[in-house]
Amino acid sequence: MKKSYLLSPGPTPVPERVLLAMAQPVIHHRTPQFSGIFAQCAEKLKGLFNTKNDVLILSSSGTGAMEASITNCFSKGEKVLVVNAGKFGERWGKIAEAYDLKVQWMNIVWGNAADPAAVKAALDADPDIKGVFIQATESSTTVKHPIKEIAAITRSRDVLLTVDGITGVGVFDIPMDEWGVDILICGSQKAMMLPPGLSFIALADRAWARADKAKNNKFYFDLKKERKNLKDKTTAYTPAVSLIYGLQEVLAMMEEETYPKLFERHAALGLAVRAGTGALGLKPVTTHYTEGMTGVFLPEGLDGKKFVKVLRDSFGVTFAGGQDDWAGKIIRIAHLGYFTEFDMVIALSSIEMALDKFKVPVKFGAGVGAAQEILRDRFEVK
Amino acid sequence: MKKSYLLSPGPTPVPERVLLAMAQPVIHHRTPQFSGIFAQCAEKLKGLFNTKNDVLILSSSGTGAMEASITNCFSKGEKVLVVNAGKFGERWGKIAEAYDLKVQWMNIVWGNAADPAAVKAALDADPDIKGVFIQATESSTTVKHPIKEIAAITRSRDVLLTVDGITGVGVFDIPMDEWGVDILICGSQKAMMLPPGLSFIALADRAWARADKAKNNKFYFDLKKERKNLKDKTTAYTPAVSLIYGLQEVLAMMEEETYPKLFERHAALGLAVRAGTGALGLKPVTTHYTEGMTGVFLPEGLDGKKFVKVLRDSFGVTFAGGQDDWAGKIIRIAHLGYFTEFDMVIALSSIEMALDKFKVPVKFGAGVGAAQEILRDRFEVK
Repeated sequence: MKKSYLLSPGPTPVPERVLLAMAQPVIHHRTPQFSGIFAQCAEKLKGLFNTKNDVLILSSSGTGAMEASITNCFSKGEKVLVVNAGKFGERWGKIAEAYDLKVQWMNIVWGNAADPAAVKAALDADPDIKGVFIQATESSTTVKHPIKEIAAITRSRDVLLTVDGITGVGVFDIPMDEWGVDILICGSQKAMMLPPGLSFIALADRAWARADKAKNNKFYFDLKKERKNLKDKTTAYTPAVSLIYGLQEVLAMMEEETYPKLFERHAALGLAVRAGTGALGLKPVTTHYTEGMTGVFLPEGLDGKKFVKVLRDSFGVTFAGGQDDWAGKIIRIAHLGYFTEFDMVIALSSIEMALDKFKVPVKFGAGVGAAQEILRDRFEVK
Repeated sequence: MKKSYLLSPGPTPVPERVLLAMAQPVIHHRTPQFSGIFAQCAEKLKGLFNTKNDVLILSSSGTGAMEASITNCFSKGEKVLVVNAGKFGERWGKIAEAYDLKVQWMNIVWGNAADPAAVKAALDADPDIKGVFIQATESSTTVKHPIKEIAAITRSRDVLLTVDGITGVGVFDIPMDEWGVDILICGSQKAMMLPPGLSFIALADRAWARADKAKNNKFYFDLKKERKNLKDKTTAYTPAVSLIYGLQEVLAMMEEETYPKLFERHAALGLAVRAGTGALGLKPVTTHYTEGMTGVFLPEGLDGKKFVKVLRDSFGVTFAGGQDDWAGKIIRIAHLGYFTEFDMVIALSSIEMALDKFKVPVKFGAGVGAAQEILRDRFEVK
């Protein structure tokens, strides 16, 4: 008998009460009953996105919302700057090219964060650049980009800042309106604790103004159409009804925990995991860790692909490995969403025992113990 | 946000697939559909009980089956020997007295197991004793009684051996027919991985012979009536339909794991927990541990009731504390049923951090690490 533990950065575990909410009978989407739930969710999402603007709910994975930001706000032939610090930065560029934008690549060595000064220099050098695309967290490297600082540069120019917050929104605070982020995107299967299948996108006023003029191909992801439908508490096309039930429950859970405590939890679990992996001698992949996940290098010479496979198949614990350049070299431990203290204990305990299986000298309990020094403060005795 | 972990010796956690099976729509119990499931369960239970005789399924907690064994096989005024080595041994005597049997108490200091020689001496001294009542595991002290040895004594006399196997059947092997146990009882909420609400009872031929003659009061727990109904694949009164769905799934899971591996898992988890508690300096309560749970003494002067409460309310981990004489003095960690390796890691990690909260000096990771030395061998790398 084996139990399975999902410790990957997405999909993340879905809470029991959310699973139960999604198990309700499917209702029709053109009904006042569904409209009430849908409008309530959209309204609450504004709080999560820290915006006065609409947050649109799309039935797609996060990549759909990424595509929507490009096809709705950018015209063919327009020039954009893509911060490419990993797999997901690269995706921005691929989508932009697929819709005939001219991409200027800002390639960053994996493990590093974007340098706001470099972004400023690039924009100064080329006034034709109409947009900057970046991630809040580059999940492939577990790096957090300095969104606030970059927004301070773009907001004073006619340059839209589009942030893929798929592993950022709900992980740490991204006050969209206050910082001047123009487009912010999220997906359901990360901090939102839902199965994959929904994405969320909010546009600032000047992004909507661009949408009035932009010329590009689109049909399913027509944001102006969706904004109009949202006013009528509905959607252009059939929404993923059961996921909306789940979203309603997730937003209730987040409110119960409160956003500050939610963000604090992610950060504390991250600190604990890094104390643990450090105690096991696993080297950090960055000095710019996001609060949502932790990547660490595996010992030199160890077959990382096999390591992650052994953890999954022999230990029942699913982590993410590395991608592209880092394939087989790193392991990524998630702590965004429905994770609490003992999930990190399981993560470190399983890594300790798996290292031992790979003949890496390990003092059992060393990683767990180092994490406990941080985790203990999260248990309040009344 | 807090997650809850149930690490008490009963109820124990119910596997997801069993919860899903129980979520099926309730069907009527007087139907061929239900009869098919019910008869299949009863047949498979014979394998678990190691008996050729019927295993009856009652809609009651385990105490109901304990009462049934007394009211069906013993007459008012008959003399019986009750092995009282804890809370549940005491219960045998209370039920027997409630139905007007004459109880001879064999009181055993908590933490000790029954001595077969003492049982033999008691039976030798008084030929009027018609039955011996005992537990396979005395859960209040986490002690395992020597059932095989005691059965070897009773089987050669006109003395029925009735074993409360509520925390024994499915935990370790109890070959009822081979050993000569006359009545064996189990409940649903322990190793059977179900919610409370079902009990199971099997009678050997000579117990059924007693049932033909015994005179006592009974109505709901009429085993001869239930045996007759079982032949027709039904029950005398309305059965707990959803729990039977769950039972069907549980028995399938047990067959998939196989009984030898199931018993081995319980034993290994117990060894790991005791290595862990030992490393934390927590003293064992017995030298006769059952495979299903581990009780340990808490440090002198520590308020054990508060300790268990803090673990439950602040850490989200529910253990059982001590009862009666041991109230506030011990903690009991369960490893029977739906428990695997990382549950023991959580148990020990939470105990380490709770001890720290109570100002007991703890080296974080010491208990977990000692357990990992045993647990690692259970993860097979292919």
